[in-house]
Amino acid sequence: MHFLSDNTASISPEILDAIHAANAGQVPAYGDDPWTKRLDGVFTDFFGAPVCVFPVATGTAANALSLATLVPPYGAIYTHEDAHILRDECGAPEFYTGGARIVTVSSAMGKLTHSALAAALDAAPPSVHTYQPAAVALTQATELGTVYQPDEISAIAALAHDRQLFVQMDGARFANALVSLGVAPADITWKAGVDVLSFGATKNGALAAEAVVFFSRELARDFELRRKRGGHLLSKLRYVSAQLLAYLESGLWKRNAELANGFAARIGAAAAAHLLYPVQANEVFVQLGDLRKKVLRDAGFEFYDWGAQDSGAARLVASWDQNERDVEALCTMLRRL
Amino acid sequence: MHFLSDNTASISPEILDAIHAANAGQVPAYGDDPWTKRLDGVFTDFFGAPVCVFPVATGTAANALSLATLVPPYGAIYTHEDAHILRDECGAPEFYTGGARIVTVSSAMGKLTHSALAAALDAAPPSVHTYQPAAVALTQATELGTVYQPDEISAIAALAHDRQLFVQMDGARFANALVSLGVAPADITWKAGVDVLSFGATKNGALAAEAVVFFSRELARDFELRRKRGGHLLSKLRYVSAQLLAYLESGLWKRNAELANGFAARIGAAAAAHLLYPVQANEVFVQLGDLRKKVLRDAGFEFYDWGAQDSGAARLVASWDQNERDVEALCTMLRRL
Amino acid sequence: MHFLSDNTASISPEILDAIHAANAGQVPAYGDDPWTKRLDGVFTDFFGAPVCVFPVATGTAANALSLATLVPPYGAIYTHEDAHILRDECGAPEFYTGGARIVTVSSAMGKLTHSALAAALDAAPPSVHTYQPAAVALTQATELGTVYQPDEISAIAALAHDRQLFVQMDGARFANALVSLGVAPADITWKAGVDVLSFGATKNGALAAEAVVFFSRELARDFELRRKRGGHLLSKLRYVSAQLLAYLESGLWKRNAELANGFAARIGAAAAAHLLYPVQANEVFVQLGDLRKKVLRDAGFEFYDWGAQDSGAARLVASWDQNERDVEALCTMLRRL
Amino acid sequence: MHFLSDNTASISPEILDAIHAANAGQVPAYGDDPWTKRLDGVFTDFFGAPVCVFPVATGTAANALSLATLVPPYGAIYTHEDAHILRDECGAPEFYTGGARIVTVSSAMGKLTHSALAAALDAAPPSVHTYQPAAVALTQATELGTVYQPDEISAIAALAHDRQLFVQMDGARFANALVSLGVAPADITWKAGVDVLSFGATKNGALAAEAVVFFSRELARDFELRRKRGGHLLSKLRYVSAQLLAYLESGLWKRNAELANGFAARIGAAAAAHLLYPVQANEVFVQLGDLRKKVLRDAGFEFYDWGAQDSGAARLVASWDQNERDVEALCTMLRRL
Repeated sequence: MHFLSDNTASISPEILDAIHAANAGQVPAYGDDPWTKRLDGVFTDFFGAPVCVFPVATGTAANALSLATLVPPYGAIYTHEDAHILRDECGAPEFYTGGARIVTVSSAMGKLTHSALAAALDAAPPSVHTYQPAAVALTQATELGTVYQPDEISAIAALAHDRQLFVQMDGARFANALVSLGVAPADITWKAGVDVLSFGATKNGALAAEAVVFFSRELARDFELRRKRGGHLLSKLRYVSAQLLAYLESGLWKRNAELANGFAARIGAAAAAHLLYPVQANEVFVQLGDLRKKVLRDAGFEFYDWGAQDSGAARLVASWDQNERDVEALCTMLRRL
Repeated sequence: MHFLSDNTASISPEILDAIHAANAGQVPAYGDDPWTKRLDGVFTDFFGAPVCVFPVATGTAANALSLATLVPPYGAIYTHEDAHILRDECGAPEFYTGGARIVTVSSAMGKLTHSALAAALDAAPPSVHTYQPAAVALTQATELGTVYQPDEISAIAALAHDRQLFVQMDGARFANALVSLGVAPADITWKAGVDVLSFGATKNGALAAEAVVFFSRELARDFELRRKRGGHLLSKLRYVSAQLLAYLESGLWKRNAELANGFAARIGAAAAAHLLYPVQANEVFVQLGDLRKKVLRDAGFEFYDWGAQDSGAARLVASWDQNERDVEALCTMLRRL
Repeated sequence: MHFLSDNTASISPEILDAIHAANAGQVPAYGDDPWTKRLDGVFTDFFGAPVCVFPVATGTAANALSLATLVPPYGAIYTHEDAHILRDECGAPEFYTGGARIVTVSSAMGKLTHSALAAALDAAPPSVHTYQPAAVALTQATELGTVYQPDEISAIAALAHDRQLFVQMDGARFANALVSLGVAPADITWKAGVDVLSFGATKNGALAAEAVVFFSRELARDFELRRKRGGHLLSKLRYVSAQLLAYLESGLWKRNAELANGFAARIGAAAAAHLLYPVQANEVFVQLGDLRKKVLRDAGFEFYDWGAQDSGAARLVASWDQNERDVEALCTMLRRL
Repeated sequence: MHFLSDNTASISPEILDAIHAANAGQVPAYGDDPWTKRLDGVFTDFFGAPVCVFPVATGTAANALSLATLVPPYGAIYTHEDAHILRDECGAPEFYTGGARIVTVSSAMGKLTHSALAAALDAAPPSVHTYQPAAVALTQATELGTVYQPDEISAIAALAHDRQLFVQMDGARFANALVSLGVAPADITWKAGVDVLSFGATKNGALAAEAVVFFSRELARDFELRRKRGGHLLSKLRYVSAQLLAYLESGLWKRNAELANGFAARIGAAAAAHLLYPVQANEVFVQLGDLRKKVLRDAGFEFYDWGAQDSGAARLVASWDQNERDVEALCTMLRRL
């Protein structure tokens, strides 16, 4: 019974069907195909504003490439201390930018705050001897299962833009955040000041499909060259684009995120006494202690420890394809612990 | 009627079936799944020697990552002037190695030769002021549709090893070469001195699946870290691995390469008067002149020009899924030109 | 009256004399000259163990190049949060390593401690998703004017080596530390476990001369290639090497460091009521408050603010060529504040 | 008797005097000193147009940093096949640009030509799969001792600008070219379309002093950050700037270049029967054959072989401080050979 990660989930039937449907004879490679060509339009509809969209196969590529487009080698990227780009990408942002630095900011609940960012920026006035602040990177939903409100993003982005920094958003779990907030995609992206979004579908039902979404054509500048140079321009790109189209057009993003968030909400309710953070998306962080964790694992539940060694904390992630009985069994056991 | 590239081809049913079959519930991510775990064994059987295999989604990633594992930033990579790594990867090898240099060698038929390589190495004795020779990169089948004989590879590799250079092989069309030669996979790889192979499946029926095959565990050193850092470790890796397993285990590699090579042989025969190079794999290069090219295009045949502007040359690529009637129509027209 | 930095100091007569003496006709370039050839021997005598020495013109180059020789692009460098490589080199270590990450460790008095390092290493067990711990970088004397005791270095280095990390030392003020401790150069370098040292002379009387000192020939591997590639192999290298020879052989390192440390000790004594850290080398950090700082500046004393804006702290640096009366005037005023 | 390189030469007395004169007490570091602040003005007078000047200590740094300021990681630099940036900098341009590629162009006499450049640019129309042409790099005087005429530079620069490429000039021997041509500095730089110049003084009498001269403030953009990040911002920068000031203001550049060019002219005249290229600066290339070379070397003359092994060619370089009798002895022997 897997509650390890939403990366362990399978592919939604809609995605497989879309791949099948795209498998119709020969079409030009490298994105010059009918599916890829439709992406800009479909994402423009989704976001309610003109966007430039570039499909890639991994979230790490989406993050690193979008940051590299905006941040020079001597630029600093400000992000939360729990950010994926900091902790889980083996330095991909540093690699793609040519050695930019990620500056970490501490604040509660996995969310960067205006004041914490302001303090970090004020603490290091730029000189020729230091990195130049260049971008802020937000994660929506965050790595701690929380979600930024639109006005929280707006406040951060306004500060960032005021200081000539770009705003990048890691949206590996963007759909989970959208469903959680019940707002329009525009409300937590371009209307709030986001410049570029890594729009994830892989964790939420796709095989391997992420879209880098630029809310300004000018910023997209050299993205295509960087993608190719990074080896991330798939030759048979239609099969990635077709996933993204199905994900948006069939409403799969919403259905799957509702499933995953719903499972997490139930687990969170069952573990209410142990919650480390509010459950706002599809992840549940609990302070269980080693004994309770052992009991759960002995019962067949798989999940990751969280935090420092022997912290006693655990992370439980719900995917769209979670087995209903597994979830119920987990909730039952959590309530009893 | 596409003869543009084997990247325009669709996916073989065997590949789609394998993806379906792998879509069975939750499994650990990032390669800790049953499919990925079987790769080393299946490839070891295929090559008749112990190998380390790492799946990635693009050939550019396979080439750049394998080279970066072997070549330091101040290293030189010797390759043929028509190599894909030189002409068609927007500098991915330079990017992944941290700025290594590709040194181009000219020789006939798209194939590096022992003597041309020796001359190139002799021409630039290393000093602290210059790049240090570090690797030779071969392409099998070559970018000109020709194929290295086992002894040609052996001669080059012996020279390379004698000079402390590694031997990398770009096998984006490795299956086409194998079928063309009728030899064992070992004969043109480790037995001939190849250290690492980019084993391609995408051009020959897969959705997106390439395997980096190290013939020595020691050389694989830090490959996994470089792959992750490059954003090329897919989270749902089982779906790439499943493609590679189906490709090898069902014999798809052979069936599809036989189809593609067979089509190319027919086209080559029909265009015998115009051939630039012998047709040994699935590509046909012809010196047609602008008028004949226009006639073909007016008739609905799509293909790329080749060489310098106004050279009058053309490249015709045959894929496994080429329509039989299209091929016949092309041959008929070529014979008449 | 400058107390801004030891970089504002002039050149010692001994250094200028050595440059003059080296200006004798034509000699081979790029280090193949008599002065450079003597370096290994003279430094070997100084350290009491065989060393490999490479002269460069800046401390940033010495630090970045030595770290790049030891740390792969996916490696992590552990250092104190006040380290020069972190705060004052505009990312040179990241640039030269190809994107390694500097992990900052907090501990008192500007000095890394065994326990703080152990905690930092334990907090991030390496996986394929993260940077791999690769080196510890110490600064001797530290950026806060304190000095590591030999056993403090030994403890850190033992831990580092136990975890397969290299130990690099930024010795921009190495002479000040030596004079302060009264130990042999060996005691705080190779005997304590340091693998490579940036041995600075520029701040202590040279024009521009730093030596990268490897305590193992094997580790020096590709340093020469990296130096050349970084543009740091001076063509007329004899003039850098001659500075280093004069610096060591005439005892200038000691005389100048004694002068600078002596001035700092007097300033520290005069400001005893305001000291932030013990004065162990040639830097004095004082908590004066804005009013007292204004009084000093109005009296013509120049120095840098320290810490966060409005912290009220200040840094006073003493150089070897400080004017005796300036120091006395400063001390007098500090005692009165 | 050294005719190996102008890097083997000593320092002119004027340069040493300037260093002495600058050694007057404490001044701010990192270029905030009176000498460095005068550079822009003095170079503006020299070139007859407003320029931005940045001193560095090596020619490799000047070239690599200036190119990195203008060329993105996916950019191509077009240069002559004998260029120093290609052959003698161990990949510094690749390193500083983050992996740009140097595309070599063949043409006679060491000089790029308009037609050769046009052909090279036409041969590789940019696509997303290839490097993007970004800069042309010229060497004045060239590595073969020849000199570009102003109109030759203008023609190349016009083509470059027409294709949106920048024009960089490696002027390690700029003074030798100026003296040879008898034109104004402006005529072979900004008036002819050069965007940035590596202005060398080291080979012509300085200790270590090169100036990166931008003819447009806008292009200088982030140069300072890149210089610092590369470890090329010397702390005691006044001593480099003072060299450059003395070099220009005392007319040293002209006196020394006239000496070196004059020696080379005499050597060239004596070796007229063997010249490979016209002697237009301070280098002489001769086809002597192995026997004559041995005779020269047995007589105590030191020089480098040139070209492929056993080519029989040699390079003789004249410096400003060449011994009069040595030159005469060499000429006598060359006439007799």
